[in-house]
Amino acid sequence: MGGDHGCEVVVDGVRLALDGISGISEIHLVGDRPQIEAALAKRHVNDPRVKILHTTEVLTMEDSPLEGVRKKKDCSMVRAIELVRDGKADAIISPGNTGGLVAGSTFRLRRIEGVERPAIVTLMPSRTTTFIFLDAGANHECKPLYLAQFAVMGSVYSREVLGCRKPRVGVLSNGTEEGKGTELTRESAKLCRQLNLNFIGYVEGHDLFDDRVDVVVTDGFVGNVVLKSIESMGKAILKNLKAGLTATPTRKFGAWIARGAFTDLKQRMDPDVYGGAPLLGLNGIVIKAHGSSRERAIMNAIRVATETIQHHLNDVITCEIAEANQRLANVKDNGPVPAAA
Amino acid sequence: MGGDHGCEVVVDGVRLALDGISGISEIHLVGDRPQIEAALAKRHVNDPRVKILHTTEVLTMEDSPLEGVRKKKDCSMVRAIELVRDGKADAIISPGNTGGLVAGSTFRLRRIEGVERPAIVTLMPSRTTTFIFLDAGANHECKPLYLAQFAVMGSVYSREVLGCRKPRVGVLSNGTEEGKGTELTRESAKLCRQLNLNFIGYVEGHDLFDDRVDVVVTDGFVGNVVLKSIESMGKAILKNLKAGLTATPTRKFGAWIARGAFTDLKQRMDPDVYGGAPLLGLNGIVIKAHGSSRERAIMNAIRVATETIQHHLNDVITCEIAEANQRLANVKDNGPVPAAA
Repeated sequence: MGGDHGCEVVVDGVRLALDGISGISEIHLVGDRPQIEAALAKRHVNDPRVKILHTTEVLTMEDSPLEGVRKKKDCSMVRAIELVRDGKADAIISPGNTGGLVAGSTFRLRRIEGVERPAIVTLMPSRTTTFIFLDAGANHECKPLYLAQFAVMGSVYSREVLGCRKPRVGVLSNGTEEGKGTELTRESAKLCRQLNLNFIGYVEGHDLFDDRVDVVVTDGFVGNVVLKSIESMGKAILKNLKAGLTATPTRKFGAWIARGAFTDLKQRMDPDVYGGAPLLGLNGIVIKAHGSSRERAIMNAIRVATETIQHHLNDVITCEIAEANQRLANVKDNGPVPAAA
Repeated sequence: MGGDHGCEVVVDGVRLALDGISGISEIHLVGDRPQIEAALAKRHVNDPRVKILHTTEVLTMEDSPLEGVRKKKDCSMVRAIELVRDGKADAIISPGNTGGLVAGSTFRLRRIEGVERPAIVTLMPSRTTTFIFLDAGANHECKPLYLAQFAVMGSVYSREVLGCRKPRVGVLSNGTEEGKGTELTRESAKLCRQLNLNFIGYVEGHDLFDDRVDVVVTDGFVGNVVLKSIESMGKAILKNLKAGLTATPTRKFGAWIARGAFTDLKQRMDPDVYGGAPLLGLNGIVIKAHGSSRERAIMNAIRVATETIQHHLNDVITCEIAEANQRLANVKDNGPVPAAA
């Protein structure tokens, strides 16, 4: 119920997912039954795998996340999270209030044992492949251990779900030299060096989009600011390009001839291709779909959820976080161990 | 001497500036005399306003900024800063080591009275105009008072040099709601509210490039990361666009017909148009030119320097920083004063 485009778009995405993605046994649509039924009828969706769970409330973008999920006990987001908590669903996908989703799922699903904080993972196109970026905004203020654990969880995600064999993990900083960065980045990098990661040290803004790193680790404040700035910049470029290409009839004609190139570019930059940003570190799969998601984004968010489930991601995260914590505890007791030990 | 493209490019930029910018009485070229003379001869520059100051050392990108400017006493950057300190020049322009320029000019020129830290200002194109962004990387770790002073200095620059009548000043955060941000952004915003600014509160990444803010204030760590990420993203988009437009003969043909649009876009995104990033808050005008500056960027950096001098920027900054500090001291003693008092 919480996306910008209402539930018809969600229903369209669900239809695409049921048609195109194998291995889905049930999709629960959680929200106002009459609205959902109307959308299903309008879109001619009549698949027995679609179930409706009626709820009377919606968490809006105006609601305070913490208070919202506490007070609106019958809102669609909370009820959907509870389906996962109660074992009736394997994953929740929501295009609603991000803060609400983080708070609600952290309270109700609890963190994986040993995980300090969950993190939002964003997938982004680099020159020839895809890199991941976390935390994209779940935690405004972080400690070094959080970032080290983000590095572990991000590395697992890149390897298990995206198939990157030996993900290069870097901490985002303002330069690659040792002396650069803040206390947080320096301490985080120190911890990462103790872990069983392909840790490449600091990466800077210039390294993004350039195939130099597979997992970029940062705190949720910087992550959020960087992601939104990048999005804003991308939109501004496309707007400028469009204005330039439609400024004269000649240019319009040339652009029409070369139109394939613009479709390619738009597709490559389109966040809907990635569809969903997983919230890692909780006992359950939680996927944040963009608030402005269209049907293709919803479908892709469902794809991300099924892939994450099929790769037993949380089992792997549980093991590797336990191992990482053990290593860090050993370092505390006995001094650094060689990374390959 | 310190740029990526050697001193011929600098000489080309100087020639363009002497031809195109009025009011320049002297330009000192500081560095290795034989190299500079060769470049001047090669470019047929024979203007009596060009002076050479010979130095025996160069601060390289590999030098540690602090140690470099301390040990290499006869490096071109240090000597150029000393020309300003000694009143023999009004501004220094350098495409060299940024950290060295910040450290060297802070030590030798000293901060304007009352200014806690100097800040690097970057100019960027928004949808229809130009906004400024500071600190772009001079200070990795900041206190709220630094950011409040950046807001004052940025506002002065936007008003006096760019001609923005009532610059809208915002603190960069991860959302516009009150509760968002870190302790630094929250405290900085509180201070800014006490000042005689057109302060619009928090701005987020989405607001950049969208004509919603004229002066974006952040700490040098976030500033550096955001700027480099944006640059990296811009380059990736242009590369992808070019690849798409040259993928088939048909597209190439279309792109050739519409070529004006791509020239426009490139020009709009070209950092060389802005040329130089002023380092504000010091007793002297210091302009950092991009390390990869070509002649047009050098010329534009010289233009930025002359405009800054002609607007007596530092006199205005001195007054307004004193007033801001007074206001903040009053608040401490007597509680908040209304912003318009």
